Amino acid sequence: MKNYKIPFNKPHLTGKEAHYMYQAVLSGKLSGNGFFTQKCQNFFQEQYGFGKCLLTSSCTDALEMSAILINIQPGDEVIMPSYTFVSTANAFVLRGAKIVFVDSRKDHPGMDEEAIEPLITEKTKAIVPVHYAGVACDMDKIMNLANRYNLFVIEDAAQAIDNYYIDKKGNRRPLGSIGHMGTFSFHETKNIISGEGGMLAINDEQFFDRAEIIWEKGTNRSAFFRGEVDKYGWVDVGSSFLPSEATAAFLWAQLEHLQDIQTKRKAIWQHYNENLKTWALEEGVQLPYIPDFSTNNAHMFYLICQSIKQRSLIIQQLKEKDILSVFHYISLHTSPFYEDKHDGRILPETDRYTNCLLRLPFYYELDTKSQEQIISIVTNVKNSHSAYSIAQ
Amino acid sequence: MKNYKIPFNKPHLTGKEAHYMYQAVLSGKLSGNGFFTQKCQNFFQEQYGFGKCLLTSSCTDALEMSAILINIQPGDEVIMPSYTFVSTANAFVLRGAKIVFVDSRKDHPGMDEEAIEPLITEKTKAIVPVHYAGVACDMDKIMNLANRYNLFVIEDAAQAIDNYYIDKKGNRRPLGSIGHMGTFSFHETKNIISGEGGMLAINDEQFFDRAEIIWEKGTNRSAFFRGEVDKYGWVDVGSSFLPSEATAAFLWAQLEHLQDIQTKRKAIWQHYNENLKTWALEEGVQLPYIPDFSTNNAHMFYLICQSIKQRSLIIQQLKEKDILSVFHYISLHTSPFYEDKHDGRILPETDRYTNCLLRLPFYYELDTKSQEQIISIVTNVKNSHSAYSIAQ
Repeated sequence: MKNYKIPFNKPHLTGKEAHYMYQAVLSGKLSGNGFFTQKCQNFFQEQYGFGKCLLTSSCTDALEMSAILINIQPGDEVIMPSYTFVSTANAFVLRGAKIVFVDSRKDHPGMDEEAIEPLITEKTKAIVPVHYAGVACDMDKIMNLANRYNLFVIEDAAQAIDNYYIDKKGNRRPLGSIGHMGTFSFHETKNIISGEGGMLAINDEQFFDRAEIIWEKGTNRSAFFRGEVDKYGWVDVGSSFLPSEATAAFLWAQLEHLQDIQTKRKAIWQHYNENLKTWALEEGVQLPYIPDFSTNNAHMFYLICQSIKQRSLIIQQLKEKDILSVFHYISLHTSPFYEDKHDGRILPETDRYTNCLLRLPFYYELDTKSQEQIISIVTNVKNSHSAYSIAQ
Repeated sequence: MKNYKIPFNKPHLTGKEAHYMYQAVLSGKLSGNGFFTQKCQNFFQEQYGFGKCLLTSSCTDALEMSAILINIQPGDEVIMPSYTFVSTANAFVLRGAKIVFVDSRKDHPGMDEEAIEPLITEKTKAIVPVHYAGVACDMDKIMNLANRYNLFVIEDAAQAIDNYYIDKKGNRRPLGSIGHMGTFSFHETKNIISGEGGMLAINDEQFFDRAEIIWEKGTNRSAFFRGEVDKYGWVDVGSSFLPSEATAAFLWAQLEHLQDIQTKRKAIWQHYNENLKTWALEEGVQLPYIPDFSTNNAHMFYLICQSIKQRSLIIQQLKEKDILSVFHYISLHTSPFYEDKHDGRILPETDRYTNCLLRLPFYYELDTKSQEQIISIVTNVKNSHSAYSIAQ
């Protein structure tokens, strides 16, 4: 892969990652569920009030755990946005679920909360809101539906670390703490990273014991080491969902600097937002929308262009100056894998984001000079025919 | 957990683990499938002639990949030993398979190759030989059966790194390279470690492309980066099976010293074997058996006691001197999870190993003095009534 002068992402090191990893290595306890794993899990439980946290090898793993925990059976239906990463869907497809895709909101790529209810059938087992760009879905609406129809809610909070939903009374509730479970990612592109890595936050007590068993390969090993049972064995399905202590050690170094990272990212986000506002208005480009019910964790900054042409033009202009901007996701309901399994509904907003959303470079070490250059290039892209013809 | 003067296991560091991890961290590429991942995969392909190698987060993950690759469907039957780790079974149970357990051999805890054929039905899809203690199953027998009945063979080579099957013509074939696929573990208790970690070795070409897709979360991302497709998307089921680059970096430091590690472990193994032989004969204890068709990778040293009482006594005597010996596995066919799904056949050898097998401390840094002490304690346990009464 080509190296860009201004890459799209650059993993930020707080300084102690290698040190703590070395400490884990020297401790002689290298497999999972040791000192650093406990430290990270406790941090999340205390900081955000999650019921029980279990580190995993990836957010994908956390989603798979949640699918096992709510006992997804072949034919069960799970409602989720189509505009999301493949793992949101795969975790449930692996258990035999049928995915029922909801369109995105007009103002924001998150799922359209108003479009969920008509999709609920007798087979619906769960709703999986994805907090896209870390921005909250309207959780009160979703939880109300879930309560009325007796559904599980798994928050895909892969991008939503340290972000909050604000309810009508003005209470701030950490994302991932509202549904029955929440899943997080520490992949190298996230605010807080461990290379690969993730976490399952479990809020509904009924899942605490079984979660630990599934996490430990279907054994009651954890209960055994706490002295609660006198031998341990195979008691359930499960997998090897634990990351190694070295991975947890890396994560711990990041968590120690969580607030610093968030402050810096928010400043970068604000700077983009302030300086692209006028241009965006003139050119009909949408900037990220933060609804009243969400705080902003500055996970990413994106543009929603007017057309795929406009997006290609911006990508191209940035590329000419050795700057990488990227788009995602290819909507899942039109994917080669799921197109023939999808029920045929057209999801116009999803398609629009697939074609028009563009993510600008965003990382802790993005300096002002680089950011100014990006802004300058973007704001010089004008919606003129001559400009378009350059892009073609 | 208590710290023992002589622990059961102690992860061995070759020296460069933290250094390479640091290098991975500083490279800015922290997620999976980077420089060190490629290096490790190439090493295995070149050294052992595996068709295609993919590092995974665990051997469990590699087994799960294999179950997806051979397209296990609910109701399919998979034949494997009952005396194995839960993951051998879970990986297939997660896909809906029915596990058909084979008893172990009398001379060795590996599966009884002669007992497989009567268990094959129209629903049988795969045989999963587990190379227990790294010692080869009789692969010619198993592959013959597989060919005759058109079955897949997944070698669970979790403990079998750098070990060989010797066929009737005297050819040495690396374990994991004989079946359609082989799975390896680099968990901290193995010869070669990365904390948590594993690998899928794929020998049958028909699986090469799809394996890469399943590994990359069900996307054709790898083909995209090679320029083979012009965009990447969701093309199959999959999961996040890749370990981070830091994990692969750790593994690379180990692989650089593979031969040194193996030489040292073989010396420890031989020392146990030489010095326990006479006592074992007198006391009716079985020592590890290496069949003519297997080389020995010195993964573990175990005793097969005459009774659970004798085993408890040895554990106890060692414990009094602050030495930890451990037993495993609780046979899967009698587990709380599978007992009512098992077909009721009694598997006497499996039960015997469950009750009587004991693993002695075994790690690279086990020094001669410590080993002498262990040998001295063990050989002083005599099968007398007075000794038994101490144990009770």
